[in-house]
Amino acid sequence: MPLISTRGSRMPESPIRKLVPYAESAKEKGVLVYHLNIGQPDIKTPDLVLDQMRQLDRTIIEYSHSAGFASYREGLVQYYKSNNINVGAEEILISTAGSEAILFALLSCMNEGEEIIIPEPFYTNYSGFAEIAGVIVRPITTKIEDGFALPEISAFEEVINRKTKAIMICNPNNPTGCLYSREELESLKKIVLQHNLYLISDEVYREFCYDGKEHFSALNLEGIDQHTILVDSVSKRYSMCGARIGMLISKNKDIMRTALKYAQARLSPPTFGQIAAESALDTPASYFEEVAKEYVKRRDFVINALNKMKGVFCPTPSGAFYTIARLPIDDCDSFCQWLLEEFTYNNATVMLAPASGFYATQGLGKDEVRIAYVLNIDDLGKAMECLERALEEYPGRKDKNEPVGINH
Amino acid sequence: MPLISTRGSRMPESPIRKLVPYAESAKEKGVLVYHLNIGQPDIKTPDLVLDQMRQLDRTIIEYSHSAGFASYREGLVQYYKSNNINVGAEEILISTAGSEAILFALLSCMNEGEEIIIPEPFYTNYSGFAEIAGVIVRPITTKIEDGFALPEISAFEEVINRKTKAIMICNPNNPTGCLYSREELESLKKIVLQHNLYLISDEVYREFCYDGKEHFSALNLEGIDQHTILVDSVSKRYSMCGARIGMLISKNKDIMRTALKYAQARLSPPTFGQIAAESALDTPASYFEEVAKEYVKRRDFVINALNKMKGVFCPTPSGAFYTIARLPIDDCDSFCQWLLEEFTYNNATVMLAPASGFYATQGLGKDEVRIAYVLNIDDLGKAMECLERALEEYPGRKDKNEPVGINH
Repeated sequence: MPLISTRGSRMPESPIRKLVPYAESAKEKGVLVYHLNIGQPDIKTPDLVLDQMRQLDRTIIEYSHSAGFASYREGLVQYYKSNNINVGAEEILISTAGSEAILFALLSCMNEGEEIIIPEPFYTNYSGFAEIAGVIVRPITTKIEDGFALPEISAFEEVINRKTKAIMICNPNNPTGCLYSREELESLKKIVLQHNLYLISDEVYREFCYDGKEHFSALNLEGIDQHTILVDSVSKRYSMCGARIGMLISKNKDIMRTALKYAQARLSPPTFGQIAAESALDTPASYFEEVAKEYVKRRDFVINALNKMKGVFCPTPSGAFYTIARLPIDDCDSFCQWLLEEFTYNNATVMLAPASGFYATQGLGKDEVRIAYVLNIDDLGKAMECLERALEEYPGRKDKNEPVGINH
Repeated sequence: MPLISTRGSRMPESPIRKLVPYAESAKEKGVLVYHLNIGQPDIKTPDLVLDQMRQLDRTIIEYSHSAGFASYREGLVQYYKSNNINVGAEEILISTAGSEAILFALLSCMNEGEEIIIPEPFYTNYSGFAEIAGVIVRPITTKIEDGFALPEISAFEEVINRKTKAIMICNPNNPTGCLYSREELESLKKIVLQHNLYLISDEVYREFCYDGKEHFSALNLEGIDQHTILVDSVSKRYSMCGARIGMLISKNKDIMRTALKYAQARLSPPTFGQIAAESALDTPASYFEEVAKEYVKRRDFVINALNKMKGVFCPTPSGAFYTIARLPIDDCDSFCQWLLEEFTYNNATVMLAPASGFYATQGLGKDEVRIAYVLNIDDLGKAMECLERALEEYPGRKDKNEPVGINH
């Protein structure tokens, strides 16, 4: 029997999805599981999108152009314009969700063995795509005490070497909820120019900015047009994660030409998803306003509840719908598994994402979890009650007077 | 400005899709283009699939499990059973079309620099996925004179070395239309066992077998369960290429575990596509019978028309909906471009796929084209008329008394 590949063994298992079998077992036993572990919002997909699908007038579900429907790309030009981002249709490639855009970006600008700097904690699947592309992730640690703000330029300079080819950010950030300021981005620009790097900016949570703060896109950094690659997706924007439609955007023609070759190999992005995503362009502003209002309510509720729990610390995020909380626990992986395997309160439990999986540096984040506040306030209330009880009962609890985890 | 990656420059452009701009120009000039260049059938997607989409009762288009809907995987078990293939749901992973299944298969069983043997001419995007995975394609040439049958075992033995890790076949074959016999597959089994290789079998054209010949699946080769990986797709089966739903199937648990990690990195296959594909399982046998009847009619028409043209040779394929024809031309790439740029007959022209792009060995296939007989008989008739005229007018025509191309 032949062996699987070495890289296949090395490929990281999703730290979020690896707990799924435990959740399934819990559910089989009749336990109610509150899912705060995954960015699957309970927000409804806009009605106009679902109506569009119900009016499907095609008789053949054909391939599209490898770069996506021309009409959709034109429509996106308007969407970006209304978000103060000027791009042409030829600077947009429709991908199979943000995931594929990330992979195409890495393959197009980096060779095997080259390095990419990513502030950690970061979206865990970046590691998976880096592994597929054979590129090396050099993390720069951001800290819960600073609300996970971008580190000083010097922190980047420390890891930059001749193999460094790119910096990747997620803004607003998954998993921290941190929204980077224009000033933070201007600092990045300096580094990018000085070291001739690519800047890959994942902005899939663009619409999720709170407290009157505005999103500043990496594409609006002047003078680094040729360095910047935007990764985008409709998944969170219109609560249609299953559509699997994203975008790779760049003003660098060589990058677009190269990305198109990767796109041609897989023929086309999903046709149904493109029909849905194109219709979603007509989503009224009121939809986003209501969604943002709802998330602010949820965020405030969750952050407040968390910080009231003994030994828990959680900064207030300004974007996305995640937060990282520090808990008085020995090990977040054991804790999250224990929650599903051994704990119930009122015949319910809560599923969280261990934050260790979002750090590339071994040993970091062991007392942190990512919480996606994607449930309604009522369920969030019950989930927080569950969590509070769980922290009291958990055998691996650290007393607040004892050292708690590595970040202390 | 940073450079694109070396591998990005090396990534092959799709030989089929690279002609698209010329086709677009022709259309802009008002020329009717008969598309025989791409496997986009004009056959209707089954009504029950489109009806299912129109009855969409979801309010949120959510992620699915990374391996796909459990219900769909269960449904597929029945589909395969009715095709005499016994697999369990846990041996099936739903992928984003066959494309992703190919990539996951290569990544799971091969390391960078290892070699895979593929009979050429082969589906051109295998090269693209091999490039992404950093694996080396070792082609074994099949010949138009033999109807592109699999070569003798000795031909495989000649290229096998310690880096050889897998053999990949497409059966029925794209681009040749060749349907491999059970005997040919049994020969492959011997090689696979003797050299401890993986056998990746792309069987997306399973339903397209003609003249009473039956498809024999690689999964039914006894004793190589742990070596065999099946790549499948709904694209051609139900004429829904745009759904982007495929499958990776193996009884090798390590492969399935590894493939699942790649699947987790991209979260989930398309939800709309899965809804469509699951409903397609109820497609009545009569649909396939009618489709097969239609393709046999088209095949017979095209093969007959081609072989009547002066200097043209074309074997009769037993499967899929492609054929490779040898034409009296100097260079298929120039010819296909010339057809779109310079030639018209009755204000129409024909778009073909240059066969050179299906050969990994440089210089082969220069006087061959792939023809997808995916249009109705009436259009095929006009397209064949166009082609015959074009061959007469083409400045690079070779006289039948002169040597024609490298295969002579």
